[in-house]
Amino acid sequence: MKEIKVNASKKYSIYITSDSNLLRTIVELNKIHSVFIVTDENVYNLHKNLLDTISNLISGIYIIQPGEKSKSIETIMGIYDKMINLGIGKKTSIIAFGGGVVGDIAGFVASTYMRGLDLIHIPTTLLAQCDSSIGGKNGFDFLKIKNIIGTFHQPKFIFSEVNLLKTLEERQFINGLAEVIKYGVISDKNLFEYLFQNRRAILEMECDKLIHIVYQTSKIKASIIEKDELDLGERHILNFGHTIGHAIESIMNFEILHGEAIAIGMLVESYMAYKLGYLRRDEYDRIATLIRYFKLPTNIKLENYDELFLYMNMDKKRTTNQLKFALPKGIGNAIITTDLNEALIKDSIKNCLGG
Amino acid sequence: MKEIKVNASKKYSIYITSDSNLLRTIVELNKIHSVFIVTDENVYNLHKNLLDTISNLISGIYIIQPGEKSKSIETIMGIYDKMINLGIGKKTSIIAFGGGVVGDIAGFVASTYMRGLDLIHIPTTLLAQCDSSIGGKNGFDFLKIKNIIGTFHQPKFIFSEVNLLKTLEERQFINGLAEVIKYGVISDKNLFEYLFQNRRAILEMECDKLIHIVYQTSKIKASIIEKDELDLGERHILNFGHTIGHAIESIMNFEILHGEAIAIGMLVESYMAYKLGYLRRDEYDRIATLIRYFKLPTNIKLENYDELFLYMNMDKKRTTNQLKFALPKGIGNAIITTDLNEALIKDSIKNCLGG
Repeated sequence: MKEIKVNASKKYSIYITSDSNLLRTIVELNKIHSVFIVTDENVYNLHKNLLDTISNLISGIYIIQPGEKSKSIETIMGIYDKMINLGIGKKTSIIAFGGGVVGDIAGFVASTYMRGLDLIHIPTTLLAQCDSSIGGKNGFDFLKIKNIIGTFHQPKFIFSEVNLLKTLEERQFINGLAEVIKYGVISDKNLFEYLFQNRRAILEMECDKLIHIVYQTSKIKASIIEKDELDLGERHILNFGHTIGHAIESIMNFEILHGEAIAIGMLVESYMAYKLGYLRRDEYDRIATLIRYFKLPTNIKLENYDELFLYMNMDKKRTTNQLKFALPKGIGNAIITTDLNEALIKDSIKNCLGG
Repeated sequence: MKEIKVNASKKYSIYITSDSNLLRTIVELNKIHSVFIVTDENVYNLHKNLLDTISNLISGIYIIQPGEKSKSIETIMGIYDKMINLGIGKKTSIIAFGGGVVGDIAGFVASTYMRGLDLIHIPTTLLAQCDSSIGGKNGFDFLKIKNIIGTFHQPKFIFSEVNLLKTLEERQFINGLAEVIKYGVISDKNLFEYLFQNRRAILEMECDKLIHIVYQTSKIKASIIEKDELDLGERHILNFGHTIGHAIESIMNFEILHGEAIAIGMLVESYMAYKLGYLRRDEYDRIATLIRYFKLPTNIKLENYDELFLYMNMDKKRTTNQLKFALPKGIGNAIITTDLNEALIKDSIKNCLGG
């Protein structure tokens, strides 16, 4: 088992392992006496055995429907209702047992029920293990705006068991790989090369490869969180691929997976970086090749590519007056810039997507 | 104007003044460029002029119905809805302009909209100026449980303008005095004596008297918050009068004001303290006399006084397995104890209320 100690406003550990039996030990180590589980139907049906070793601590389970539609106030209120009816008190910890949706919902409940319960993440998707379970962000959607309501609530610990990933459909697994590639590009040349060299074994989900990529990405994310827990500066470099990616998700009405949209976003934004002289042509090509290797999409069909630009501007309005990009500067580094002109952005979109 | 600097996880100031024109200066000092107001109908109708000096910064106003019934998820969702429709972004601050209900609701919205906006309190009741606006607690009621959902969210600043109190009905003003007495008993003998000596001028709402009591209570609360922001220990001494008081509120189905219930609670709990040797008889009498001076209730009619004990135990279940009391130890000091036997509690209730 590997352990990463996160030094945020709250100190906590990320445990990465292929031994599910360690859960009991970790729970005892963290002095957890009572837990309330939030999970989804798929995860519960496939993996409920994981909870066997802590079954005597479970004071309730709430099973949501899988998918983004569950990220609603109705789901949240349903969980509050069940917790109140079970008499759940402040000493119970909430376990988020699932992917990003479960983590977001359970995290919000944990941060608001009786002004805050301890939260434990047992992420079951690659995206959640490598990215979304780390950093304390949670939230739900309202009036079609993703994560418009949410808080920061750091967990008590994260237990990433890589065997949980083996039941993922290939498309879901690859969806998570997009964020892994992102971490390589923005922060870790070795990880980027590792992905290149081990791409076949990764797609075959070999345990040691999974542990390696979950460990490396978790370490990078943890170190960024430590510097900027509340997403005020440093943390923005995690948005590589996301300025374009979010606009793609919106324009597609979320009928594309997050990682898929981000893959296309990384491609376009790497092209911008190349045009600005931050990436050499061969580096840009290598990023594009890796995205293709993992069978991530590299294009979408749009009637009017300028529309993407409009969506980017709608997104931006809520935070700042400028479009902000996190762009790679060589492979393994990134910068944040608001200093891009409209023509470059539109040209890059057209060059990469509209050709 | 007086200023108290609060050194919590976030540093902020409490400004206490009788000059409403200072609001503009304070807003500029804190570099606020845009505000969204949450208020209630009464406060808005009586005091909207206060906002005139900052009217050019207001990007929206949401007016709730006065009263505890507004502390619901429906009110919260209504505010989110309006904010989204107005395109309110992360750089806007929320102003809670009202009493405890407005503060709780606006505080929750500020802590959850886009993962947190800055929050400004302009409290308009004595209870809010002396107590509820300080300390970051917010929340709303669900399934008849008060504040079951909420967070801690420290404000950017608090602007307490004592002239706002002058439109309060006497019952509401006196309601706030109960908490002021509490601060004297648990932490400040001088404040307690001040209340005794100036009781007539206080009831006539003389400005300098109001400034004095808001300043002293705010200072005490701020210093307790600094030591125990998340209500894990030290902060529990603020619960003097509340273990009994909360049970009274529940048994009366909240048809009694918070301060009124707390006044009765302080009386019974002071009696316990006297029985345990923490208070001399003359000190207990003096507390009872002050409560009576301010025309706060000292009794309720119940069919069965043991029922109060049952309600106390229901309350307790959610936090710990023991009944916990904050009891005065002399006037100006308090201790927290879980070490009281049932007979003493029941006897004290009967002696004070059931005689």
